[in-house]
Amino acid sequence: MSAVKKIGLFGCGTVGRGLVELLRDKRDWLEDKYGFLFELCLISDYLKGTVKSPHGLNPDEVLKNLAEKGDLFSMGSASSKRFTPDELIGSLQLDIVCDATPTNYETGQPSLGILRAALSSGACAVTSSKGGVGFDLAGLEKLAQGNGVKLRYESSVLSGTPLLNLTRDALAGCEISRAEGIVNGTTNYILTMMESGASYASALTEAQRLGYAEANPAGDVEGFDAAVKVCIMAQAFFGVKISVGEVKRVGITGVTPEDIKKAASEGRRVKLIAGVKREEGGITGYVGPQAIDITHPLAGVMGAANAVCLTTDNLGDVTIVGPGAGARETAQGMLADMLEIARG
Amino acid sequence: MSAVKKIGLFGCGTVGRGLVELLRDKRDWLEDKYGFLFELCLISDYLKGTVKSPHGLNPDEVLKNLAEKGDLFSMGSASSKRFTPDELIGSLQLDIVCDATPTNYETGQPSLGILRAALSSGACAVTSSKGGVGFDLAGLEKLAQGNGVKLRYESSVLSGTPLLNLTRDALAGCEISRAEGIVNGTTNYILTMMESGASYASALTEAQRLGYAEANPAGDVEGFDAAVKVCIMAQAFFGVKISVGEVKRVGITGVTPEDIKKAASEGRRVKLIAGVKREEGGITGYVGPQAIDITHPLAGVMGAANAVCLTTDNLGDVTIVGPGAGARETAQGMLADMLEIARG
Repeated sequence: MSAVKKIGLFGCGTVGRGLVELLRDKRDWLEDKYGFLFELCLISDYLKGTVKSPHGLNPDEVLKNLAEKGDLFSMGSASSKRFTPDELIGSLQLDIVCDATPTNYETGQPSLGILRAALSSGACAVTSSKGGVGFDLAGLEKLAQGNGVKLRYESSVLSGTPLLNLTRDALAGCEISRAEGIVNGTTNYILTMMESGASYASALTEAQRLGYAEANPAGDVEGFDAAVKVCIMAQAFFGVKISVGEVKRVGITGVTPEDIKKAASEGRRVKLIAGVKREEGGITGYVGPQAIDITHPLAGVMGAANAVCLTTDNLGDVTIVGPGAGARETAQGMLADMLEIARG
Repeated sequence: MSAVKKIGLFGCGTVGRGLVELLRDKRDWLEDKYGFLFELCLISDYLKGTVKSPHGLNPDEVLKNLAEKGDLFSMGSASSKRFTPDELIGSLQLDIVCDATPTNYETGQPSLGILRAALSSGACAVTSSKGGVGFDLAGLEKLAQGNGVKLRYESSVLSGTPLLNLTRDALAGCEISRAEGIVNGTTNYILTMMESGASYASALTEAQRLGYAEANPAGDVEGFDAAVKVCIMAQAFFGVKISVGEVKRVGITGVTPEDIKKAASEGRRVKLIAGVKREEGGITGYVGPQAIDITHPLAGVMGAANAVCLTTDNLGDVTIVGPGAGARETAQGMLADMLEIARG
């Protein structure tokens, strides 16, 4: 690998900015360790404008503008025109398109359009959005294969925990029969507080005060967020598309301090477990509170950390534990995907 | 990838036999999922004989001979001649050489000679032995690079836990500043027993009765086995060769039931922690009992399981937990390495 990769970035919120910073900070090290040479030739954000340069943008100038003005309109190459992804990707002859746009579960857009445009034009694509891959992973993978390019989506699920690339590379040769884990930080925080004696209501209020839980907490506490992650795991590990409605889902609103005390007295701890498994009848997805043994690798996962335990044929259970998703963590997943792509 | 890979196997003990079984059982699935086509063209064992075929050996015949006779001398192509690795690898034009020979810490042989012969002849090499890579990883990697081939050694350390390939692929882009974990099953078993009230002496006796601990248990309980693994991690993660003597080493012989009770009363658990970290002054390796918080990802690791917590710049702490090393687990690590090699 030695050709300079032309990178384009769609979406410049906290994750996009995190990626620009990471690429700036690690440029020399990435060249030295991986022979990874790149130019960031495009940043396009729906609200902050579009900047491009076939010879590479100056990341310091980008970050300065974002910090001082909150947008990119003051940069020399800036445009407020709403380009289509096709126009931008084709004219710059990008090698890798990074999609860090926000997720829309209803339409999959804008992620879906960006990924389709990238793969159709012969660029590889990396995404942190659940939008496109959640909506049509199979179609996107077919498009990638047909065009001889790669699609990678490590950061679309549990960014911070390199789950997909672990199964793809390090566990190559293993067949996975079950993946289950702790994939929602808000509910894990609430359960941790309840273990220290708080009631469900006061733990939820505290989680809301700290910004972990939304004002309307249903997405977390009723298990919907975890169920969406189950759907992505079902596609990634079993190639099967299941809908959120098909996931057997129980939230934590019914968990009482008595449940938690009883579990503790038996050497157990109550966790919201989200999983997907292959059974005789097909693929089953589930989310619900379980009292797991204190020696279970998932039992020690506290606060915002994520963890998934994979049951495999060759290794039995393998568990990966990582931090919750921040901008840097999500950008790291995109970087790992780019390095994999650049290896050819 | 479509060319049929010619594989040769040196060493046909439990690990080698496990690899033959795994390749037989998964042949169709490996072709279907990874496009991995192979022929096992050579098996050479110092005691059990050498069999070879340029068009591939019949794994059922190999396994039948091993099961019924304990060796390979009754097979048609068998030879009891002591070939050198060079003779065998060159004449068969092998693509991948698998080294599953026993480890000799003093000389690194026979692993070192096999790996050198493979890489020099332009074959890629995969090893489960600590011998060759423990003795001269830097020299072997230079040899591989010079010949444009790959050397992979996932199963040489913590087979069952895909630690090296995790850091190589899924964590690509992260710099590791520390790796520490529970890497010795015997001591972990003894500490688990002591937590249930056993004395050190009775726990050791029980571990010996179950075959976990050797009659002379010093290698485990004094921390030597863990220290060897620390040395391999130092090479793999920091490119620095340290000797076992340079690892700060305390075993578990001084751990008392009182230490364990005191730790439990503080929400802690005593574990033998082995680690290596980068500091101002260089690379430090250490092995010793520590009372870690019950919520630490390593605290729930019991029995023969292994786990390593990696401290990285981009993701903070990432922990991987896997099973102890059996023949199938070790063979799986070699298979993952071969799939990586075959990807090109």
